[in-house]
Amino acid sequence: MDKSKSNVNQSKQSEQIKQLVEPIRDDLLSGAAEIALRAISIFQSVLATSQSLSAKDLKEQLQITADALIDAQPAMASVFHLCNTVLLTSSAVKNADDTKQCDQIRLDCAAALEKFEKTLCDSAAEIAEKTISLIPPGELIFAYSFSSTVVSMLLHARAKGRYFRVVCTESRPSMEGRKLATRLAAGGIEVICTFDSAMGLVLPNCSTAFMGCDCLGRPGVVNKVGSYVLALTCKELKIPLYALAGTEKIVSDDRLFEFEKHERPGDEVWENPPHGVKVLNRQFELVPLSLITGIVTENGVLHENEINDYVAKTEIHESLRLEAVAF
Amino acid sequence: MDKSKSNVNQSKQSEQIKQLVEPIRDDLLSGAAEIALRAISIFQSVLATSQSLSAKDLKEQLQITADALIDAQPAMASVFHLCNTVLLTSSAVKNADDTKQCDQIRLDCAAALEKFEKTLCDSAAEIAEKTISLIPPGELIFAYSFSSTVVSMLLHARAKGRYFRVVCTESRPSMEGRKLATRLAAGGIEVICTFDSAMGLVLPNCSTAFMGCDCLGRPGVVNKVGSYVLALTCKELKIPLYALAGTEKIVSDDRLFEFEKHERPGDEVWENPPHGVKVLNRQFELVPLSLITGIVTENGVLHENEINDYVAKTEIHESLRLEAVAF
Repeated sequence: MDKSKSNVNQSKQSEQIKQLVEPIRDDLLSGAAEIALRAISIFQSVLATSQSLSAKDLKEQLQITADALIDAQPAMASVFHLCNTVLLTSSAVKNADDTKQCDQIRLDCAAALEKFEKTLCDSAAEIAEKTISLIPPGELIFAYSFSSTVVSMLLHARAKGRYFRVVCTESRPSMEGRKLATRLAAGGIEVICTFDSAMGLVLPNCSTAFMGCDCLGRPGVVNKVGSYVLALTCKELKIPLYALAGTEKIVSDDRLFEFEKHERPGDEVWENPPHGVKVLNRQFELVPLSLITGIVTENGVLHENEINDYVAKTEIHESLRLEAVAF
Repeated sequence: MDKSKSNVNQSKQSEQIKQLVEPIRDDLLSGAAEIALRAISIFQSVLATSQSLSAKDLKEQLQITADALIDAQPAMASVFHLCNTVLLTSSAVKNADDTKQCDQIRLDCAAALEKFEKTLCDSAAEIAEKTISLIPPGELIFAYSFSSTVVSMLLHARAKGRYFRVVCTESRPSMEGRKLATRLAAGGIEVICTFDSAMGLVLPNCSTAFMGCDCLGRPGVVNKVGSYVLALTCKELKIPLYALAGTEKIVSDDRLFEFEKHERPGDEVWENPPHGVKVLNRQFELVPLSLITGIVTENGVLHENEINDYVAKTEIHESLRLEAVAF
């Protein structure tokens, strides 16, 4: 294939990748684990449609996919680690024969994706098992926003015969709290749902609160906006608040603050506001560790000093390292 | 008029009163002062259509109106005091001549209503003047829900040349925060609006917060749901929070808790929730005085021990006294 043709193909494929990733940017209802599973499918599609590419171009396609996914969901640590895993895997493959190199990249990346997916699922199952003892039987418990880890934990606890009711709030503006309520009710759990600012009204009747986690670092947990007032109210009312998070959510301090890039269109909150009114629509916020009773991972309740160990032992692909900000 | 005819007329008029009051029950956008002004109009209508009644029946009509208004808005102290004033005024009129008694009731009540309206307006103006010094120039300030007292205070401060921007939240489910934003923007004040659970995200940039008040007593301030998490967040972030309230908002401890009767239909929050999900829609909640920096009344910042004096010196019509709960 001559070079100009290759360039045309490359740019066409880059366009296709962007189209594949776009729905992930606009997915406001899924929890972090669900979005990571969707990102795995996207990498699988890119690998499957890469048959005619050279090794260099294939690696570039994977890089474009990784960059697009991280840009679409900068607060999602599991998406970041998934992309990092794929890039490290593809970079490690060296072979003088271009066709053989391509085949090896596809094989190794497919295996890495499968392993990542299995880890996500196993981790959710482990967290569910480890959290059961934190649900006081017969009580009202509070759950915030939508997290598939929290949903599977609650359904697992109910399947194990633990009786409880759940209170949740709707989670404006995307209303993913309604998705949580619907899933739990379909699983036979009685749910009480109200609007978000009524947290202070319902929490005094709850004995424990749970939330998911999009990203976790030494400064705290990044999760859906509203988690901060939830944590503050739980602290005031002395209600334990647990964040459920696989260790694939752990990132370095600088990466943690990437969530601040994530601003959504104002019209998702208020269509056609009058002249003079600016509408703000941020999706994520940071909850300091001091406001959270415990973070339950697949290895049990996390100790703050373990976060450093996870960060230290994680190799980051050179293209994903954040540059130090120059002053 | 024979007795049976009189009974028919009475019940017809009672029905008319209920129809007059119903829109007040469903008024979720107006602040307390606006609702009190609407209640004044209703009393004026009842007086205007009472020409054929006996003094006994006229007093009964006023009683029915008062009971219906208090039942429609149990959290609104100004509606309660308005009704109390009308009932005390009409009860005080004694005259052997029935026609003369009726005329006197109409005259005295009309004067009492006019005086109440003037007090409400003067009080809002006084509060506005006394609050200006609490607005730091050039800063972002936070305002919650909709209160005509807060709106007129902010517009007054702007008219006096004080520059500031306002941050508010939408106030689900009735969205009266949008009404606040619209009114302020129309008055030339720059507004930033977001959803309610994002309070914790915007408050760190604000230097002061203001809210209205529906009812005020020794246990605290009753205001729109969300005021409690607002107060908690302000306390954590060390942002002064002021409630603006005319002294006509002050009630006894037992009357204060009448707001708990006020539950709204769930479908205002979530239409057609799935089976197994109960939707809770409460409108008001209590914020303890300990979470509020100060309450600004027409007489300046209120001291907690003054609340007792106001309660002690207010005569309550016998029909409006709450019975002690029997154990």
